[in-house]
Amino acid sequence: MATIRDVAKSAGVSVATVSRVLNKKGYVSKESEKAVMSAIASLNYEPNSVARTLNNKSSSMIGLVVPDITNPFFPELARAIEDVANIYGYTVVLCNTDEEVKKEKQYLHALKQKYIDGIILTTSSLSDEDYSKLNIPIVALDRVIDDKTPSVFSDNKKGGEMATEHLIANGCKYLAHIRGPIGVGPADDRYEGFVETAEKFNVPYIVVNADFHLDRSREVAEELLRNHPNIDGIFASSDVAAAGVMKAAHSVGRLIPENLNVIGFDGIPMGTMLTPALTTVKQPIYDMGALATRLLIKQVEKTRLDTYHYKLETKLVVRETTKNLEVSHE
Amino acid sequence: MATIRDVAKSAGVSVATVSRVLNKKGYVSKESEKAVMSAIASLNYEPNSVARTLNNKSSSMIGLVVPDITNPFFPELARAIEDVANIYGYTVVLCNTDEEVKKEKQYLHALKQKYIDGIILTTSSLSDEDYSKLNIPIVALDRVIDDKTPSVFSDNKKGGEMATEHLIANGCKYLAHIRGPIGVGPADDRYEGFVETAEKFNVPYIVVNADFHLDRSREVAEELLRNHPNIDGIFASSDVAAAGVMKAAHSVGRLIPENLNVIGFDGIPMGTMLTPALTTVKQPIYDMGALATRLLIKQVEKTRLDTYHYKLETKLVVRETTKNLEVSHE
Repeated sequence: MATIRDVAKSAGVSVATVSRVLNKKGYVSKESEKAVMSAIASLNYEPNSVARTLNNKSSSMIGLVVPDITNPFFPELARAIEDVANIYGYTVVLCNTDEEVKKEKQYLHALKQKYIDGIILTTSSLSDEDYSKLNIPIVALDRVIDDKTPSVFSDNKKGGEMATEHLIANGCKYLAHIRGPIGVGPADDRYEGFVETAEKFNVPYIVVNADFHLDRSREVAEELLRNHPNIDGIFASSDVAAAGVMKAAHSVGRLIPENLNVIGFDGIPMGTMLTPALTTVKQPIYDMGALATRLLIKQVEKTRLDTYHYKLETKLVVRETTKNLEVSHE
Repeated sequence: MATIRDVAKSAGVSVATVSRVLNKKGYVSKESEKAVMSAIASLNYEPNSVARTLNNKSSSMIGLVVPDITNPFFPELARAIEDVANIYGYTVVLCNTDEEVKKEKQYLHALKQKYIDGIILTTSSLSDEDYSKLNIPIVALDRVIDDKTPSVFSDNKKGGEMATEHLIANGCKYLAHIRGPIGVGPADDRYEGFVETAEKFNVPYIVVNADFHLDRSREVAEELLRNHPNIDGIFASSDVAAAGVMKAAHSVGRLIPENLNVIGFDGIPMGTMLTPALTTVKQPIYDMGALATRLLIKQVEKTRLDTYHYKLETKLVVRETTKNLEVSHE
């Protein structure tokens, strides 16, 4: 492979001159520039990307910090981020933090050392100060860190309202919500959407606390269905939690959707693999990842952002776990 | 942050001397080395990682090339690779190629430019020559490229045998295999394991061709069950394909496991979310990723490998989609 020295020799100029041409910095005579450019072309010289990183303090890399890529919400997000980054010539470094402060700090430090150009954060274990001290462009995904940090998230409250309205429209008379982790923004918003809608339509309801995991939601749903056999509509705070509800219904002998409607949240591919296929409120996961990446690259390339916070719309996707209960009772 | 110049000044030596100490190259007097080390400690100096990359031609990064991270086999693999890489101080760059030759070439080129230390390949669209020309350590995961390239894969044929034996032991009298893509090594091996076992036990069988996707396997399974209502045991070449079989069984009114046994392959988390939970042949996905990463780092660090090819054992995981049909007929 040709080196910068080969280019200098072939062009009859110094290495420093070649470097000035490559970095578009400092004075170079027209003749020298022409000689350098033609030497680069004839030698098929590619400036070493690491050397460029050192000169420009840019590595053409962005970091993606997730709690755990095996959580089925994140692969589609990672895919979108990588697709868009690739279009703009950036590569993506993947970091799993398990929401641990120590791991997140280590990663941010390591990424900074590598002159990473920007970071997409789907966690926020550290303080605002920790992030701003980094002095690297950041976009927050699926959460809001502070006013100055651009963020992309979906309209979780509206989604919770749509899910609840759908159950009520299907004739459900006694609702339950399997709530996600308390204190986690998106889960709290879905909960609020549920409660406000049930109260608005004056439909009785129960809320049980769980998390986004299968086993816990299965346990609480089974207890719920045993203690309250009249419940005929359940809104689970995630698709994985809804899969737990479906298992619970099977255990206690309730048929979905004939005498129990179930709706999830997220729109991950797993929902289509269940039998019956899961009705859900779909977040635009791919679009969220793609938009976050564009916002990040804009910041890296010092383009002014018109809007800092993007709330994307969710969409009701009716599959097979919900149907009109009035009709089914005929 | 302290620079190399600050260290030189504080130690009373030249920048070149500090550089010689850092890179452990060239002569430095004992006194100078001591002065440099103590200046580094007192100034809390951290050699810039990009500058080190340029000196050592090592970026402490490894590339992970996958067809598509949203394929549910890959997130757990990526997680394992990242966990182990992290222990050894490496970060992971994620690349999705969609099995496209052009994309894979672009990535390999870009990774080489960044002085990536090694690559874990789960695709093999290019020729052996393309890979060896790269002159970067490579480990092949879930496939074999050639004799000289270390590889990690699981015993797919044995897994196919176990799946088939399990169906036969459960009393199935007429078997079917939903075959994965023809020409893809792991799918071919599972198919062979199925055919040999069915013939060994003299149980009639049908093989239908599909791929690893939900919709295609659902279609072929539905046709299969309509045309051959006597089929009582189906081995699908992946867990996702098995989810398609479960949907097909539901459509044609067959009860799982009461009058149809179904078994998948892979052991991805989705299998536990299905109702009934999917019996499967589990590949040690996390262990495969972890081992591949250790093999790669050994090569990067010029440690001799004792073994180049690792075939890991698969394991039968009996959940709820299989049970003894004799008992159920009583």
